Amino acid sequence: MKIQPPRGTRDFLPEEMNRRRKAFDSIRNVFELYGYGEVCTPAFEDFKLLSKKSGPDIEKEIYTFKDKNGRKLGLRFDPTVPICRIVASNLSLAKPIKFYYITNMWRYDRPSVARWREFWQCGAELIGSDRADADAEVLSLVFKSLNAIGIKNFCFKINSRKIVNGILQLFDIKKPLWPDYMRILDKLDKIGAKAVFKEFEKLGLKKEQYISAENILRNSISIEELKKYIIGVYKNKNKNPEENDAMGGFSELERIIKLAKLFGVRNIEFDASIVRGIDYYTGFVFETFVKGYENFGSVASGGRYNDLIKIYSGRETPATGFGIGIDRLMEILKDEEYSPVKIFVAPVNEETRREAIIIVQILRKNNIKADTDLIGKKLGKQMKYVNAMNIPYTIIMGTKELGRGEVLLRDMKTGKEKRIKNEKIVDVAKSL
Amino acid sequence: MKIQPPRGTRDFLPEEMNRRRKAFDSIRNVFELYGYGEVCTPAFEDFKLLSKKSGPDIEKEIYTFKDKNGRKLGLRFDPTVPICRIVASNLSLAKPIKFYYITNMWRYDRPSVARWREFWQCGAELIGSDRADADAEVLSLVFKSLNAIGIKNFCFKINSRKIVNGILQLFDIKKPLWPDYMRILDKLDKIGAKAVFKEFEKLGLKKEQYISAENILRNSISIEELKKYIIGVYKNKNKNPEENDAMGGFSELERIIKLAKLFGVRNIEFDASIVRGIDYYTGFVFETFVKGYENFGSVASGGRYNDLIKIYSGRETPATGFGIGIDRLMEILKDEEYSPVKIFVAPVNEETRREAIIIVQILRKNNIKADTDLIGKKLGKQMKYVNAMNIPYTIIMGTKELGRGEVLLRDMKTGKEKRIKNEKIVDVAKSL
Repeated sequence: MKIQPPRGTRDFLPEEMNRRRKAFDSIRNVFELYGYGEVCTPAFEDFKLLSKKSGPDIEKEIYTFKDKNGRKLGLRFDPTVPICRIVASNLSLAKPIKFYYITNMWRYDRPSVARWREFWQCGAELIGSDRADADAEVLSLVFKSLNAIGIKNFCFKINSRKIVNGILQLFDIKKPLWPDYMRILDKLDKIGAKAVFKEFEKLGLKKEQYISAENILRNSISIEELKKYIIGVYKNKNKNPEENDAMGGFSELERIIKLAKLFGVRNIEFDASIVRGIDYYTGFVFETFVKGYENFGSVASGGRYNDLIKIYSGRETPATGFGIGIDRLMEILKDEEYSPVKIFVAPVNEETRREAIIIVQILRKNNIKADTDLIGKKLGKQMKYVNAMNIPYTIIMGTKELGRGEVLLRDMKTGKEKRIKNEKIVDVAKSL
Repeated sequence: MKIQPPRGTRDFLPEEMNRRRKAFDSIRNVFELYGYGEVCTPAFEDFKLLSKKSGPDIEKEIYTFKDKNGRKLGLRFDPTVPICRIVASNLSLAKPIKFYYITNMWRYDRPSVARWREFWQCGAELIGSDRADADAEVLSLVFKSLNAIGIKNFCFKINSRKIVNGILQLFDIKKPLWPDYMRILDKLDKIGAKAVFKEFEKLGLKKEQYISAENILRNSISIEELKKYIIGVYKNKNKNPEENDAMGGFSELERIIKLAKLFGVRNIEFDASIVRGIDYYTGFVFETFVKGYENFGSVASGGRYNDLIKIYSGRETPATGFGIGIDRLMEILKDEEYSPVKIFVAPVNEETRREAIIIVQILRKNNIKADTDLIGKKLGKQMKYVNAMNIPYTIIMGTKELGRGEVLLRDMKTGKEKRIKNEKIVDVAKSL
């Protein structure tokens, strides 16, 4: 029998879970400081709901199944759609709605470096505000979250779907093709230029159209240069530059950048090539790259999706948000020393076991992580266990010491021992 | 389109998640004080692994599906089997292994009161010790966990599979029928005596056999009375009572009860009717009932399963553990007042928005949960929002006050207001 977890999934053992739990707690603390409340949705959803925005093609990429009543369900692969469903089914919620989540998700993907079939993501959604303030707060949440878990050296690359739309307009690429264009361009790093160009041609684009658009998107052009360029093109044609969608995008981005600084965010760069592959974005989009780990791709991404909730609720509801990929972050974060408890209470023989239980319970009652032997090991084997578990201190319960109302405390790193009166154990343990 | 979660599942909104998170944190704290480390296994497992111990019939009760490569998978419905898989695939782990989990699981069950298709459970497994000390620690973990979340009035009903086996021996019920007998008897509360008797007859049991066994199991007989009764029957037949399996069970239970007291556990009762429906138990078993909520059934159950890990690893590995049903506990625990933040910073007009952001960021930096308006609401609507969200304090940023380097702090419960100098905001906010 196979005793490994299913392909593309992992078991997390205590050392790794401890690192993850610490990261989750730090991020949760930031989210809650900003007034976001945690939500949790079911692991599976009605497949129709999941495919509503992504289209039925999504089935190839996710886990779907029928329950015993014939309902077609799919495992959650994106947290935003279920959250939109919550909003649509709770129309009385006061706006803005500030929700966060820390959860696992599933995709039927080819497993690779930091790409898993069961993966973890945390993020937040800010629903009900169309203001740049909201997008700036979103950037600030990511900034503070990454800082909180010890990642300081990263930068945001931001863009607006409106700017990308404007560039496509510039080269007479027709509006119905825009979503496909962006989905294809977003795959550039993954599948390469040749494959991308082939897909553009399948869309019916002329070479000069897609090459020109792609050139601008792929060059590191500044926001001012791009603005000037578009204005120049329109003026040459004697047309009003304000007809181009990008102009609205520029002023929004400028406002977001200004406000994000007020929110304490640093390291924001404009990057016209950030398009995000997902259909539902309508304006501001961003990705986040950690210095030295650019090969992982973006560790935190998001943006504004003003039309998504209306699909489920029928009501106009502007929204912005982001997701942080936990698995990639955990690859970047350093390992920490892990030990399940601070003190191991070691009875030297059967007679001292009773006292060992009493002492370990006193330590636990005083909020000190402690353990004792439950197997009946001899002292030598207990010490081996203490070392294997990386436990820093041992209290040795000897018969001689017991008679004197004492125990022996051993520092496992230095090997130093000292005698402690029973009534001092808690104080000494707290001070370690 | 259906915008409700799938049948038998729920969305958890912030108020409910906050209650759950607090309970999880309290329980986690207890588990970690005892030296248990958190583990997390994939949401789905190889179906063969899941059905190995429960038999293929389990398929009717769980979610199963094939992935795109034809692998038959099942959603996790029991945490013990995946944990045994971890142990089997990590043979070098030092013993005892102390693992805990707090996670969701899935069963294709008819939804009813506090019975969900997606449900939450936490628990711990103590692997590698066959001593009563280990079972006593398990009871102690449950005792302290329930206490930690505020449930004080409950009792443990304990038994041993060996005692049940002994009773079945007493009435000449053959060993191969024991697992079926226990699985059927465990359904008594659910399906009633008539249906249970019918199933016993299908097993080939004679009425006098199952009625006699069931009578003893269902009567509240004390451990001493039962022991005396079995010894009496054997002596009458001139047989050695030690031939009966129950005798080993009695001495084990007596030892567990004595040690559990040393671990600080109260309210343990022997109850011969506790059998636990699951096949893998081999000795000590227990259930936990909260006074006044007996109709919920057991809120925490477990026991010793000395043979389960061997199935996966080929090595003898004694183990004991338990699971706590979170959903039932949350029904018992009282609601708490919930507010996403402590302070809302309300700008009175567009000019004071900038300062509102600065102040809210200072509060957050000082670890005070705070929020401000991101929608552009007028003051009156902001106050409505503050009341709807149950936020206890508002800092009002008026133009006049701003000029004086002051803000207005309003206590939303009493309606009282006071002026505060900007430089005092953090101190005052901390003291609230």
